[in-house]
Amino acid sequence: MLPVGKAMRVGLADLAPLSLGAAILGTGGGGDPTIGRLALQRQIARHGPPLVISLDSLDDDAFVIPIGMSGSPAVALEKLISESFADSVLRRYERLMGRAVDAVIPFEIGGVNSLIPLLTACATGLPVIDADGMGRAFPSLERTSFAISGVSPFPLVIINERSETVIVEAPTPLRGEQIIRTALVELGGACVSAKYPMSGRQVKHSAIAGSLSHAAGLGRAVLAARADKADPFAAILSFLTRQSPPVYGRVLVEGKITDISRDMVGGYNIGAGSLDKDDGDRIDFSFQNEFLVLRRNRILLAVVPDLICFLDRETAEPITCETLRYGQRVTVIGVRAAAPFRTSAGLAAAGPRSFGLPYDYVTLEALASLSSEPRLPAGDIAWTPPDL
Amino acid sequence: MLPVGKAMRVGLADLAPLSLGAAILGTGGGGDPTIGRLALQRQIARHGPPLVISLDSLDDDAFVIPIGMSGSPAVALEKLISESFADSVLRRYERLMGRAVDAVIPFEIGGVNSLIPLLTACATGLPVIDADGMGRAFPSLERTSFAISGVSPFPLVIINERSETVIVEAPTPLRGEQIIRTALVELGGACVSAKYPMSGRQVKHSAIAGSLSHAAGLGRAVLAARADKADPFAAILSFLTRQSPPVYGRVLVEGKITDISRDMVGGYNIGAGSLDKDDGDRIDFSFQNEFLVLRRNRILLAVVPDLICFLDRETAEPITCETLRYGQRVTVIGVRAAAPFRTSAGLAAAGPRSFGLPYDYVTLEALASLSSEPRLPAGDIAWTPPDL
Repeated sequence: MLPVGKAMRVGLADLAPLSLGAAILGTGGGGDPTIGRLALQRQIARHGPPLVISLDSLDDDAFVIPIGMSGSPAVALEKLISESFADSVLRRYERLMGRAVDAVIPFEIGGVNSLIPLLTACATGLPVIDADGMGRAFPSLERTSFAISGVSPFPLVIINERSETVIVEAPTPLRGEQIIRTALVELGGACVSAKYPMSGRQVKHSAIAGSLSHAAGLGRAVLAARADKADPFAAILSFLTRQSPPVYGRVLVEGKITDISRDMVGGYNIGAGSLDKDDGDRIDFSFQNEFLVLRRNRILLAVVPDLICFLDRETAEPITCETLRYGQRVTVIGVRAAAPFRTSAGLAAAGPRSFGLPYDYVTLEALASLSSEPRLPAGDIAWTPPDL
Repeated sequence: MLPVGKAMRVGLADLAPLSLGAAILGTGGGGDPTIGRLALQRQIARHGPPLVISLDSLDDDAFVIPIGMSGSPAVALEKLISESFADSVLRRYERLMGRAVDAVIPFEIGGVNSLIPLLTACATGLPVIDADGMGRAFPSLERTSFAISGVSPFPLVIINERSETVIVEAPTPLRGEQIIRTALVELGGACVSAKYPMSGRQVKHSAIAGSLSHAAGLGRAVLAARADKADPFAAILSFLTRQSPPVYGRVLVEGKITDISRDMVGGYNIGAGSLDKDDGDRIDFSFQNEFLVLRRNRILLAVVPDLICFLDRETAEPITCETLRYGQRVTVIGVRAAAPFRTSAGLAAAGPRSFGLPYDYVTLEALASLSSEPRLPAGDIAWTPPDL
């Protein structure tokens, strides 16, 4: 990205690393950013490169709207062909609040949703804030650093490609999410959405800073390693270490997928599987849109909210839960969750128990350094999806 | 009702005739107004009688919102216990449109929805317009004189008793209705709703004038006949004849219910049945929330949008489609539909074919005066519910 004072322009050369980094941070979900990248390429050619501003350069009184897509990523991708579709939700939100939006920000940096605000920025000239609300992808509305900081998601606005619009307000974010899920199905499975209206001050207090440049840097490290025929996994870990402060991450396991099953439940892509290490050890995993947990029998290797990223063992190309298949050779890396998700409020929102897993969170670092690895509780440890 | 200049106050003495008349005009649907009447009684005791103004006294530039309940009448009635619930939708609509509402109006005069605007008027001091959008009850959103005149129903706002709010906009009223139906289920089956925002000029152009006083007059005629031990059906027909212009109506049939079946389909109360006349002739009928058609074999006796009202044979107490049961002795009267529903636009919206009936509309008057009664087309005349 080209620095412009405290701001940067996202040019055509940034798109490949940005979408690759975003796909890695998607931890199996968030949708494949490829089609989003193609749409963004067309928009940049038409309107010029969008402006990305740093979180600390944001005016305290700015009016900021997080935007992205809600619903099934697979359906969402097909609809992205119409770029102006992404602007419609911004315009409706402005009309609803009676106020012009000053900047947009991604809900999540993982997957296609990292690119939607950039698409909108091209057409509208609004800046995108270099930050997000997850530092990864999560399957639902409550799991944002905005919500953890006490920001209300309401009003929630979703619009489909036929301009069918649903606006929701509810006493709790969870009920808002339930009502929106129902409406999403009626509106065709995927919509552009806007929620968590914030002042600049609120965004600075709650957002995860530097997400877009982090994703682009991560992608750039992998692409450079590939070009140099170097080890892309070493490049990822080296990139994470060079951050300020350094981001903890490590290779968790290498192996071959030996089992995978998935189902659509309540609008979520839910499933589990296993992979065999070269030494024959079997590793199990489960997911709800994104990977939730990785374990060897009763020994926990990594668990949400920490990032569990399945990558192709040769190229480090990220593999989504939807495209994971028998026989794939993968390297799984773990990356520490963003700080807000390691607080008690963050873990209540996005920790293992929030997904119905029957045990508490242990950090990726603790799991690596403990002399005797923590054992999961006795009894049934099979994952039962929570009441969706 | 007590005249106040061009306006009237609805006092406690008006509630019994008004709710009786509204139940008759509900043509089997619209919900039993009894609980609404009790709620209104409490509100009048607390705030004094609400003001009802005539359609022609309305200011052209007034901002008018039709309000009522959407969803299952049975569920709606239980929720009416909290009167302030009805005001919430008005307040939300004002906030949404950035404009104070000057007057409210019922969507439909049939059933409980005739009383909701009066409830709101008590608490807010707003006047209610003596008019409505149906002159009866209909099962869905598109079937209003407002829509027939080209008024948009959007934005559609529904709110439940927990303040969960859904606002819908769509390219067509039909899609709006489909999206709202889905949301209604998620919101518990019944909500207060507001839609068709209008200027005073639009209301004057599109509403059916005098509906509230018409319902109250109809109810008063029945109550007076009962008190005088006179024939309540003669009183109804005499009342209709005395209107200016006279409203055509007649007794269609008397008999005993011999068959009734009903089912909930797509949120509608759908069913059919038959009754035996004293001479043994069998009469068939069908309904979708409200009665749709009455026929003797292939001979049509009455069909929507004309009103088909099932009344208790002794007391003329109206019987809803939900409470109709085997063995009930009924008198069925037909009343001509309000003028907007007899236009081609009105029949497209609310004629027999709009309900999936396989034949065209014939007026109640024509069915009475034709020397040889029109026969329905050969083939299957059983009613198949439309694609809901």
